[in-house]
Amino acid sequence: MTTRLSQLFVRTLREDPADAEVASHRLLVRAGYIRRQAPGVFSWLPLGLKVRRKVEQVVREEMDAIGGQEVLFPALLPREPYELTGRWTEYGDGIFRLKDRKEADYLLAPTHEEVFTLMVKDLYSSYKDLPLIAYQIQDKYRDEARPRAGLLRGREFSMKDSYSFDYTDAGLDESYQKHRDAYERIFRRLGLDYVIVKADAGAMGGSRSEEFLHPTPIGEDTFVRSAGGYAANVEAFHTAAPEPRSFEKLTPAEVLDTPNTPTIQTLVDVANEKHPRPDGRAWTAADTLKNIVLAVTALDGARELVVVGLPGDRDADLKRAEVVFSPAGVEPATEADFAKHPGLVKGYIGPWSAAGPVLGEKSTTGIRYLVDPRVSEGSGWITGANENGRHVFGLVAGRDFANDGIVEIATVLDGDPAPDGSGPVELARGMEIGHVFQLGRKYAEALDLKVLDENGKLVTVTMGSYGIGVTRIMAVIAEANNDEKGLVWPREVSPFDVHVIAATREDAVYAAADALVAELESDGVDVLYDDRVKVSPGVKFGDAELLGVPLIVVVGKGVAEGNVELWDRRTGERTAVAVSDIRRLLAQELG
Amino acid sequence: MTTRLSQLFVRTLREDPADAEVASHRLLVRAGYIRRQAPGVFSWLPLGLKVRRKVEQVVREEMDAIGGQEVLFPALLPREPYELTGRWTEYGDGIFRLKDRKEADYLLAPTHEEVFTLMVKDLYSSYKDLPLIAYQIQDKYRDEARPRAGLLRGREFSMKDSYSFDYTDAGLDESYQKHRDAYERIFRRLGLDYVIVKADAGAMGGSRSEEFLHPTPIGEDTFVRSAGGYAANVEAFHTAAPEPRSFEKLTPAEVLDTPNTPTIQTLVDVANEKHPRPDGRAWTAADTLKNIVLAVTALDGARELVVVGLPGDRDADLKRAEVVFSPAGVEPATEADFAKHPGLVKGYIGPWSAAGPVLGEKSTTGIRYLVDPRVSEGSGWITGANENGRHVFGLVAGRDFANDGIVEIATVLDGDPAPDGSGPVELARGMEIGHVFQLGRKYAEALDLKVLDENGKLVTVTMGSYGIGVTRIMAVIAEANNDEKGLVWPREVSPFDVHVIAATREDAVYAAADALVAELESDGVDVLYDDRVKVSPGVKFGDAELLGVPLIVVVGKGVAEGNVELWDRRTGERTAVAVSDIRRLLAQELG
Repeated sequence: MTTRLSQLFVRTLREDPADAEVASHRLLVRAGYIRRQAPGVFSWLPLGLKVRRKVEQVVREEMDAIGGQEVLFPALLPREPYELTGRWTEYGDGIFRLKDRKEADYLLAPTHEEVFTLMVKDLYSSYKDLPLIAYQIQDKYRDEARPRAGLLRGREFSMKDSYSFDYTDAGLDESYQKHRDAYERIFRRLGLDYVIVKADAGAMGGSRSEEFLHPTPIGEDTFVRSAGGYAANVEAFHTAAPEPRSFEKLTPAEVLDTPNTPTIQTLVDVANEKHPRPDGRAWTAADTLKNIVLAVTALDGARELVVVGLPGDRDADLKRAEVVFSPAGVEPATEADFAKHPGLVKGYIGPWSAAGPVLGEKSTTGIRYLVDPRVSEGSGWITGANENGRHVFGLVAGRDFANDGIVEIATVLDGDPAPDGSGPVELARGMEIGHVFQLGRKYAEALDLKVLDENGKLVTVTMGSYGIGVTRIMAVIAEANNDEKGLVWPREVSPFDVHVIAATREDAVYAAADALVAELESDGVDVLYDDRVKVSPGVKFGDAELLGVPLIVVVGKGVAEGNVELWDRRTGERTAVAVSDIRRLLAQELG
Repeated sequence: MTTRLSQLFVRTLREDPADAEVASHRLLVRAGYIRRQAPGVFSWLPLGLKVRRKVEQVVREEMDAIGGQEVLFPALLPREPYELTGRWTEYGDGIFRLKDRKEADYLLAPTHEEVFTLMVKDLYSSYKDLPLIAYQIQDKYRDEARPRAGLLRGREFSMKDSYSFDYTDAGLDESYQKHRDAYERIFRRLGLDYVIVKADAGAMGGSRSEEFLHPTPIGEDTFVRSAGGYAANVEAFHTAAPEPRSFEKLTPAEVLDTPNTPTIQTLVDVANEKHPRPDGRAWTAADTLKNIVLAVTALDGARELVVVGLPGDRDADLKRAEVVFSPAGVEPATEADFAKHPGLVKGYIGPWSAAGPVLGEKSTTGIRYLVDPRVSEGSGWITGANENGRHVFGLVAGRDFANDGIVEIATVLDGDPAPDGSGPVELARGMEIGHVFQLGRKYAEALDLKVLDENGKLVTVTMGSYGIGVTRIMAVIAEANNDEKGLVWPREVSPFDVHVIAATREDAVYAAADALVAELESDGVDVLYDDRVKVSPGVKFGDAELLGVPLIVVVGKGVAEGNVELWDRRTGERTAVAVSDIRRLLAQELG
């Protein structure tokens, strides 16, 4: 196959598109692979579609290799199945909903757990039918609040989603592992660096869950990893709780004047100045207990305030808080919230608790008090006394105040210990490129998917859900493979094997280029041929660099001496090669 | 590749699905190719997806062969481009509309003329960039009033739509012809009988337009064809208007009593009895002029009554009327409409006209009077006198009444003359499987798509639009290729090359079948292997007939004597073949 650039439906741009925030978006638009139609919605031009199909094919082959069976389910789906699992509501504004002419409710599916579950229920009834892995490569829809970064976070995007069905936990483990291995092979074939991190289950329910993150500074996820091999999404990071300590030798708590100390820093300064630590060391923020008021809004709209106690050297990480309180929403309490609770003295809030008395008379507001795992039994703190300008010193968890639960909403910091004892963690940014997920029996229970086991007994099926964002992966590949001149595709997904340039206008050059292209075509090489007559060599070279086919052959004046140039787009190296050798060399390169 | 039936995600059904109206729907569901998710919305199981991909591939190859460039545009599109061409409104209830979280209007695209036009405008600026043919194979959405017949009329369906861009009319003719030829090749490869008929332009605007209809009694279109080669969709059929005749020898019109003659039949009877025809022949319905009142509703909601005069032997064909009045809607006038116009005497309505006086005083209602082409100048009629129980005889068009326009809304009848003089037509039913369409400059003008021509002058681009319904074609193929036992796929789209059945449970049979399947796989044959152990031969044979792979190999007890059976699904013929010959025979068959 040969594609002539003179006829290709493409136009390269010299300028970056105004709305492009990241390199992949900028370059895919400039090189004419995609065009934006609406926020998060793109059209795929011939070059873009070719790369996308190649990414899909790699994914398809690896899914087929683990026995996955390809199907294709609708994007347009009725409300009912999603109503049965609660996701119709839980997705909130995050999905597109619509009505048909009969006013029936539909959605554009964000994922397909429900309909796969129902399909298996329709088709299968016995353990002998299992295990089953079914997958599709299909366009999905999410009404993202901030569609950004081109294909990295779209509202219409292609995803490979697969679902496994087993009737034993061991079977689920096996299906899960197969996917995990397949994903590793996919990312290796695509030349994509990845880290597998523990993930939070999020809105999907279920148990074991890992994300494949591609480490990149533009990643939307923060993850941690230790030298000893621990890795987790920061939302799934668990703080190792200190062992409980005895209260015995601890002195009683004492309320002291700390005028003008509404912030942790002012508190630490005043404490060191006016109430120095008995052992002579300085107080630090870590000695203080910061009490943050959050407003939690349930799906039914009910708004509840909670107070969360964190060590004063940490902030609340709202993304972690979202996971903790999901599917309810969470935000910092507003002035209006505070106005309704005059007992909450801003800057001087103490451990309020519905669970037990705290400093006597002020414990009756009914506001839940949740704490960070570090606020462990026997730990002592400087914290608010619920009075303006006063703090309590030496307030001991479990002795002087109780809590209504432990929550992980504190920021994770470089150097925090990994919970598995594998050493301190470091933080990094990553882009989610895959997700494997043990759903367990949540969906099968909600939709009543059971099969008969070996003993003729009905058992509930256990499921896994596994996703790879095809269009996102393509953008991540572009993000990881470019330079200031343009794209540099890995061979596996390059739109063409070879880009041949007829560099100058001489008939002899064109004759030689034509002949070479014909030969390559007969060798089965997929060639992009820059046959444009009225375009300067400089523009052709620039376009070749922008388009990013990794192997470029320049046919120029040297062809009179029997030479062409083989140009390695990645290294920039240009080597003179005898025309008589070029077919053999390319065949070797393309292996 | 070998697929083992024991592991395939499929279940065949003995019973027809309750909602299936046609054979293709019934059989594709029973054989486990597809499942219905909502009215007009289907899930594709592995077998169905394989066939669909093969149909797509045939279409793709023929589009590539005419220089088509494959792209992929979004299904989710913003309102604006469709607003610019008026189609946002014109589609009425026929499309799915939705809003995003910012309340911006979107639709699920039914076709993509607008966005292709805008894309070409974005990318191209010179005649040198043209001609261009761009196509996509993409899921489309229409909110059909009556989604029916399985895949034949879906609400989510796959279509190949392509668009041609030229800067001269001759160029458009060429692009149009290329598509027409490609479509013929596609249908021939798919073994699908088709008729190319003149089509009405419908909501798309534009000039030349032809449909590819597959003749079938379940077709939703009615078309006519003459032995001399004329063929047209009945909505596009043009009645040959008689030549004008002189009024000279015609007697004056006369109003006569015709009591109790509100219908054509009663009128003809009374006329023959009381007012016999001077030449002695009997009056027939064709001598009467039937005046029908229609209500036409414009897109802005304005409702206008019109009266249409037809020869009394014909009815109004509302589908033809829809085309005539499109984009306005049309329906028979209601009792409420008549109540507002007491001058319209039901059963006795005469040629009302805004264009001129008719029978004196009763011509001032302002209602437009439109006529069938057969109501030509000089033709004489018996028609209503706008008085209860009275008709006028010998009323002559052009002498006694005028009209406000000619419209083609009369039913077409077997034996009507073809407008090109090629003889009488006969009526038949067909299913639209393709449509080629010269849009001309309508979209380019609405969206301002111009290029510079050879002289540096800006010229408006002229376009074509061409569609093939991929999922519909698959259903039509199934419709045309089945028998009482199940599907019978043409080889080009069969999900597998060969269906191998291990018929009985003996180890020797399985060993022989396993060996054969392995050999066929090494020959590159795509095999479906019925390796199910606890299933009876009868069920396996029934499933094979239902699934419809055209070549079946039965490995049974005969294998002890070195024989297997080659079973032709279409003819039902089963031939004993030596095991040693079967590979060669199949290779020959699959050629």
